[in-house]
Amino acid sequence: MTLYSYWRSSAAYRVRIALNWKRLDYHTQPVHLLRDGGEQHQTWYRDLNPSELVPTLCDGDVVLNQSLAIVEYLDERYPSPNLLPRHAKERALVRALALDISADLHPLNNLRVLNYLTEHFAGDKHSKVEWYRHWVAVSFTALEQRLNQLGGQCCVGDEVTLADVCLVPQVYNAERFACPMDNYPKIREICQYLETLPAFELANPHAQVDAD
Amino acid sequence: MTLYSYWRSSAAYRVRIALNWKRLDYHTQPVHLLRDGGEQHQTWYRDLNPSELVPTLCDGDVVLNQSLAIVEYLDERYPSPNLLPRHAKERALVRALALDISADLHPLNNLRVLNYLTEHFAGDKHSKVEWYRHWVAVSFTALEQRLNQLGGQCCVGDEVTLADVCLVPQVYNAERFACPMDNYPKIREICQYLETLPAFELANPHAQVDAD
Repeated sequence: MTLYSYWRSSAAYRVRIALNWKRLDYHTQPVHLLRDGGEQHQTWYRDLNPSELVPTLCDGDVVLNQSLAIVEYLDERYPSPNLLPRHAKERALVRALALDISADLHPLNNLRVLNYLTEHFAGDKHSKVEWYRHWVAVSFTALEQRLNQLGGQCCVGDEVTLADVCLVPQVYNAERFACPMDNYPKIREICQYLETLPAFELANPHAQVDAD
Repeated sequence: MTLYSYWRSSAAYRVRIALNWKRLDYHTQPVHLLRDGGEQHQTWYRDLNPSELVPTLCDGDVVLNQSLAIVEYLDERYPSPNLLPRHAKERALVRALALDISADLHPLNNLRVLNYLTEHFAGDKHSKVEWYRHWVAVSFTALEQRLNQLGGQCCVGDEVTLADVCLVPQVYNAERFACPMDNYPKIREICQYLETLPAFELANPHAQVDAD
């Protein structure tokens, strides 16, 4: 398998965690999102992924974009150890948490959005950093409440799931933008536990071949 | 089942299509996103859904947010007729298309984001409408290319899937914001076919009890 990845991309980070969790061998092909205006916009990559975003996973003749679709694919194709619970209700709760992060929060704070915002909208008073922190605060407030109901060591109970795969990269990025984290003790507690697990450690941006 | 819905919400529209497709009986509980500063922010609703977004689905004691998690739940719990294909590769392609729309595009153009943008960022030269149209153009350009490869009558081949459930509400909203659609003949062709299907017709915003 080949993963087209960028060390700091949250979405690529999710897939790296899932691949490690399942102990799957893969080759990392770095796509530098900043160099030369962004390698994701070059023809060779656009042919692979017309959305011009990372990650892309190639597994034989299967070429996939979208981190959550990739993790679900890995979970179906290589089910042990699983990242989605057995029962429909728990699966739905895990997926909803994953989407709370990956659909409602992360796309708002993605590189392309921050660039477009800065270029066309940001003035003297408001900056992309305020934008970033605002959406983290909105989402983490709701997430903290949900995790207090559902969480144990992990987001849903004590087993690692797709929700945890999404949580750690999001918290990593929130810390990078110095978002205040005092109001989210449950999020922090779960994250601290997850970061001790080898699958998560190995997926950390700073452990990647293309890290600056 | 009770669906907490707003007639114009893309995300609620998706769930309505899925419920109709599966011929499931449900009760609509309107949540007016504009009235009184937004009913989604009132305590009674926040207790049900701390993210203060629609939709929420209650199926017995199962309370779910996130439209894609809800549709996947319905597909597992009430599998016939299905909205995800049988094979892992096709399931992944369908999920990726659904996320191209629901994660990479729709959250950027959501009501709360447009409001925040207008309040804190938009100046004389750029408005929320330009923001909206920019992200539709970026996503639809990639989507058109993918659908030319994967699509038939529907987004993936000729069977209705989760991807179609996401496409129709997104195109409805793009047309509401008068986004130019000339460059996306395949998107339009698929949408025109889907809109003739009763499950999609009945889910249309203007057919809802709470439509203005």
